Amino acid sequence: MIKAGIIGATGYAGGELVRILLGHKDVEIQWYGSRSYIDQKYAQVYQNMFQLVEDKCLDDNIEALADQVDVIFTATPQGFLAGVLTEDILNKVKVIDLSADYRIKDVAVYEKWYGIPHKSPQFISEAVYGLCEENREAVKKARLVANPGCYPTCTFFSIAPLAKKGYIDMSTLIVDAKSGTSGAGRGAKVDNLYCEVNENVKAYGVAAHRHTPEIEEQLGYAAGEQVVLNFTPHLIPMNRGILITAYAAVKEGVTEEMIRSAYQEAYDKERFVRFLEPGLCPQTKWVEGSNYVDVNVVYDSRTNRVIMMGAMDNVVKGAAGQAVQNMNLMFGLPEETGLMLVPMFP
Amino acid sequence: MIKAGIIGATGYAGGELVRILLGHKDVEIQWYGSRSYIDQKYAQVYQNMFQLVEDKCLDDNIEALADQVDVIFTATPQGFLAGVLTEDILNKVKVIDLSADYRIKDVAVYEKWYGIPHKSPQFISEAVYGLCEENREAVKKARLVANPGCYPTCTFFSIAPLAKKGYIDMSTLIVDAKSGTSGAGRGAKVDNLYCEVNENVKAYGVAAHRHTPEIEEQLGYAAGEQVVLNFTPHLIPMNRGILITAYAAVKEGVTEEMIRSAYQEAYDKERFVRFLEPGLCPQTKWVEGSNYVDVNVVYDSRTNRVIMMGAMDNVVKGAAGQAVQNMNLMFGLPEETGLMLVPMFP
Amino acid sequence: MIKAGIIGATGYAGGELVRILLGHKDVEIQWYGSRSYIDQKYAQVYQNMFQLVEDKCLDDNIEALADQVDVIFTATPQGFLAGVLTEDILNKVKVIDLSADYRIKDVAVYEKWYGIPHKSPQFISEAVYGLCEENREAVKKARLVANPGCYPTCTFFSIAPLAKKGYIDMSTLIVDAKSGTSGAGRGAKVDNLYCEVNENVKAYGVAAHRHTPEIEEQLGYAAGEQVVLNFTPHLIPMNRGILITAYAAVKEGVTEEMIRSAYQEAYDKERFVRFLEPGLCPQTKWVEGSNYVDVNVVYDSRTNRVIMMGAMDNVVKGAAGQAVQNMNLMFGLPEETGLMLVPMFP
Amino acid sequence: MIKAGIIGATGYAGGELVRILLGHKDVEIQWYGSRSYIDQKYAQVYQNMFQLVEDKCLDDNIEALADQVDVIFTATPQGFLAGVLTEDILNKVKVIDLSADYRIKDVAVYEKWYGIPHKSPQFISEAVYGLCEENREAVKKARLVANPGCYPTCTFFSIAPLAKKGYIDMSTLIVDAKSGTSGAGRGAKVDNLYCEVNENVKAYGVAAHRHTPEIEEQLGYAAGEQVVLNFTPHLIPMNRGILITAYAAVKEGVTEEMIRSAYQEAYDKERFVRFLEPGLCPQTKWVEGSNYVDVNVVYDSRTNRVIMMGAMDNVVKGAAGQAVQNMNLMFGLPEETGLMLVPMFP
Repeated sequence: MIKAGIIGATGYAGGELVRILLGHKDVEIQWYGSRSYIDQKYAQVYQNMFQLVEDKCLDDNIEALADQVDVIFTATPQGFLAGVLTEDILNKVKVIDLSADYRIKDVAVYEKWYGIPHKSPQFISEAVYGLCEENREAVKKARLVANPGCYPTCTFFSIAPLAKKGYIDMSTLIVDAKSGTSGAGRGAKVDNLYCEVNENVKAYGVAAHRHTPEIEEQLGYAAGEQVVLNFTPHLIPMNRGILITAYAAVKEGVTEEMIRSAYQEAYDKERFVRFLEPGLCPQTKWVEGSNYVDVNVVYDSRTNRVIMMGAMDNVVKGAAGQAVQNMNLMFGLPEETGLMLVPMFP
Repeated sequence: MIKAGIIGATGYAGGELVRILLGHKDVEIQWYGSRSYIDQKYAQVYQNMFQLVEDKCLDDNIEALADQVDVIFTATPQGFLAGVLTEDILNKVKVIDLSADYRIKDVAVYEKWYGIPHKSPQFISEAVYGLCEENREAVKKARLVANPGCYPTCTFFSIAPLAKKGYIDMSTLIVDAKSGTSGAGRGAKVDNLYCEVNENVKAYGVAAHRHTPEIEEQLGYAAGEQVVLNFTPHLIPMNRGILITAYAAVKEGVTEEMIRSAYQEAYDKERFVRFLEPGLCPQTKWVEGSNYVDVNVVYDSRTNRVIMMGAMDNVVKGAAGQAVQNMNLMFGLPEETGLMLVPMFP
Repeated sequence: MIKAGIIGATGYAGGELVRILLGHKDVEIQWYGSRSYIDQKYAQVYQNMFQLVEDKCLDDNIEALADQVDVIFTATPQGFLAGVLTEDILNKVKVIDLSADYRIKDVAVYEKWYGIPHKSPQFISEAVYGLCEENREAVKKARLVANPGCYPTCTFFSIAPLAKKGYIDMSTLIVDAKSGTSGAGRGAKVDNLYCEVNENVKAYGVAAHRHTPEIEEQLGYAAGEQVVLNFTPHLIPMNRGILITAYAAVKEGVTEEMIRSAYQEAYDKERFVRFLEPGLCPQTKWVEGSNYVDVNVVYDSRTNRVIMMGAMDNVVKGAAGQAVQNMNLMFGLPEETGLMLVPMFP
Repeated sequence: MIKAGIIGATGYAGGELVRILLGHKDVEIQWYGSRSYIDQKYAQVYQNMFQLVEDKCLDDNIEALADQVDVIFTATPQGFLAGVLTEDILNKVKVIDLSADYRIKDVAVYEKWYGIPHKSPQFISEAVYGLCEENREAVKKARLVANPGCYPTCTFFSIAPLAKKGYIDMSTLIVDAKSGTSGAGRGAKVDNLYCEVNENVKAYGVAAHRHTPEIEEQLGYAAGEQVVLNFTPHLIPMNRGILITAYAAVKEGVTEEMIRSAYQEAYDKERFVRFLEPGLCPQTKWVEGSNYVDVNVVYDSRTNRVIMMGAMDNVVKGAAGQAVQNMNLMFGLPEETGLMLVPMFP
């Protein structure tokens, strides 16, 4: 039985970790960390857990926690883990960080986009970027996994097959993203009130969203060249789900058949990435509550561009589900353990 | 391995049966019956099942089906099963009917409220009303289970503890219900279009809803007297969930403590009915996707009435989940097999 | 031209006052009071007002304001107006208070339910309860109008015709209410976040909601007897709208025809209360954005009860619209001036 | 008093025409045409119109109608008006067509994208494309106005200022659009059911949507060159609203200041197009129920692209509101008559 501790257990990603781990036969949650709700029963914060979780919320003392568990999930604000992580902790437990602290290899880029100094850059090179399908072998051996951001995950799966093959002109890449509101977190802000989000749609963080450098870095690895792109997220009146619509010019000589083959080849053996049949558009509802990413591509001969699409549950594959997938790899379990969640419809 | 067939597999309740049974380790679905989609791949109708279900939709030939499976679920319109059920079928397979055909013991009442003749009244007395928590032993021995309606299920759990104890005046009982739109089914009707339901709330079937006699019959058993009540359902702009708010006058001598004890006693050992702590109101979101019913009660000393509340996922405990719970009982499996679904939030 | 000032102009009711008054040909808004946004442009707080309102937000200095305008609307928290109102102010301007400060005639009842001391009880008896259809003549002469609460308004119109005729047993009255989320205000609270309200329904303030004594007082006047009832509000995932479903036993000798006649008589000449045709249920969407209240009634011969229903836009007829209707009366304008807003659908 | 007739009065655009025209002091609706609801009271189809509209629905006999009114609005399926329009009708009344029949000058393009033969191409060249802000003078003299599509309207206002100035490379233009569900019409289709749209987002009509050639034609006029672009619409779980997010490479020498000036110049004197302050993103909620289009632009120096954004109510400025604006021009009324609708929030 793997003993797990969660720091930041009362955010939406933390709550989803609890939901998934409760259904994981090899894991036992030992620590529900939540600075805001210390000593309150977890099931009072998340009433869905009534009679399922009897524990109270604990603080975020990662050193104490490291002595008690085998794996720590940090679903915490940017900078938290970087501020407390030590070699000693990493020697005791595996750490899966759902924040951005160790995702970006270039610390200057991190500090510029996140606007805070990085307090433990010495761990960045060691940290494995936990996109399981991409970095499976490295994850298996990792002490520290940087769990990817929600937008970068969905964007990567939508575009990577063509990037890797060199079929698209990466300098023309545009990523237009739509996200449900859980992505904005559980903080009490006027902008996230029901009446402000409902019956509304807007772009935000235009040309400035923090996931941009993460997307660029990962797609850069896939393409084998530096990538600079436009990424525009939009807030959608729904709880869960991310939809990516990406556009790029197709290189000369590339045919529609080559394009579809690239995706087939990339995802044929992947359990959690589903390449849809021609003509179908990914819909967030079809993956809700599951660890799937659904992708598809349309070639437009009029403009010689591809429209690449991906749909994902931002809280599952975009956060907690992918974190558990990483944990499974790190502990030598079958990758899908506890993750065979059938999407819920409607 | 239990072999299961579903007739009506492409309605919302049928789809949820598939979702739940795919996660049930002892069941294999053999037949996806859907008159409207014969020969189409099931995963094209419900794209969430892509790569999870490879089968095509079949017709609704229940006799052919009876030869191939151990249990048949009928998630069909009123009158379908009553029109095709035979002794021969019941000798071959167990049948769990999600329609109302065998729920009401008095055939005249059925025919009056449903407006159609009952074509096989000979099976009514045999059919067990599949409210598992209430009729556990009978369900275990049943060939034919009438799976309860969504409103009756949630209403019963909200009120029964007080009805059984004789603590409330049943003649004062009023049930005000709120349901998500999946309860209206997947038929293409203007009234159920997004733009008609969204940003709207209304009562419907006022003093005339078909679940009324079913509720009255079951609460009548609980109270040991004939019950006539008001039941008013409302359509709520959400996919899933039923909330019951019921009102009744409290009999003399009954104290708040007695009231809470009645619920505790009734549900202490029930896994799927959760009696909330004092002061908390059931919320549909806290049970979404799960087989739980959350109930609570408030005693109002000003009016000497109780307000009894219950929340449930209409598609799970109100339909497919309860059907699987019945199946578990009928096949001697632990009742919760495949049903330990943690509610999804948000 | 009537000069108007609004204190609390950046709450949802305040914003709606601005929307309505901008379309009112006889009014000019002179003061956008908002303690939270002083010196910010109003159109930056409510971007819908861009190029329509050039003013900045001012403070809530009611004395300064009284010197500059003809009418003051206070859309402020409970206790604000009671704490600052003076005879001097009332001598200078008319005041329409959207808070509860002067709605309840018995100051002890106010202090008990609102949990704060009333700082200017000397104005309570003078204040006119601004249910225009009920107190038209008194409103015309008033200096101080207590604009009714949203729930009380919709409840009153749904029930009053039968209460006045003595057709129902007031001791059996139960009011089950459903409200959109704008009723919860624009404060940043976790409970009102999009992800907490969306796909959810719950009761709140069970047996304890502050609008209870206001409803009881007004229905008491209508019935000519003291009224004690159950009032249970529910939070609905929509922006606007209140739906009332009320239940009461019908007195002996009262027929369905008498019941319908009572409503017809009450509302035949009322422009803003629409008594629907038999068989139709009020829907909040059909009155959205307008000053209408739609009501209807069903007589249930099985239980000998009536189900009384009313639908209204809580922000318009339940707040800002009714306030403007009161203002029109107070200034001798045709009651419907600026209020002939056609409901918006979808 | 202008006498107006509407053919297709029971669709969402038709209903909105009624809403707007009821508030227009110079118009009287004489004919509520609706093939599906002939002889039913209009207020039974749209219950919001109860006591506001007493008329019954009539058929779609345009010749009879032409004898009775001054202006005909056709809010009908593609091909209807083209099939019935005659010189005789145009000699009697002005016609404003909300369908696409006369929007596209090249009949071959129309027939290719709409898949039907055009039955009266002789009127195409005469028809004025009713983008009022663009073709004001021509509209004033028109007998036949082709009211622009919803997506083309919002797209045009978002992009045109830069296209006209030649500041962007039109061959790089990508338009990613998001629309509320009213755009899908009131037809009873499974895809538009509440449970299918709610909590979901998807692209549709990828590389194939019929508004593509209309957008290309109009932007082509603005740019003075042929335009071929990508247009991808998405379905959003909300009733109303269109948001455009468009991307293009900026030509050398063009500065951010030049870009903002282009918009200022274009819209400074336009009442219904609002160019937002720097840093603000258009939101559909801020224009709901109104005739406004809100636009803004962000220059991204990293990619040397502009992100052009526009928000609009698809049923108002994208359909009925623009139609009334055209009518105002055609009848010599101030353009904004009956259209000074303040956006409704929340």
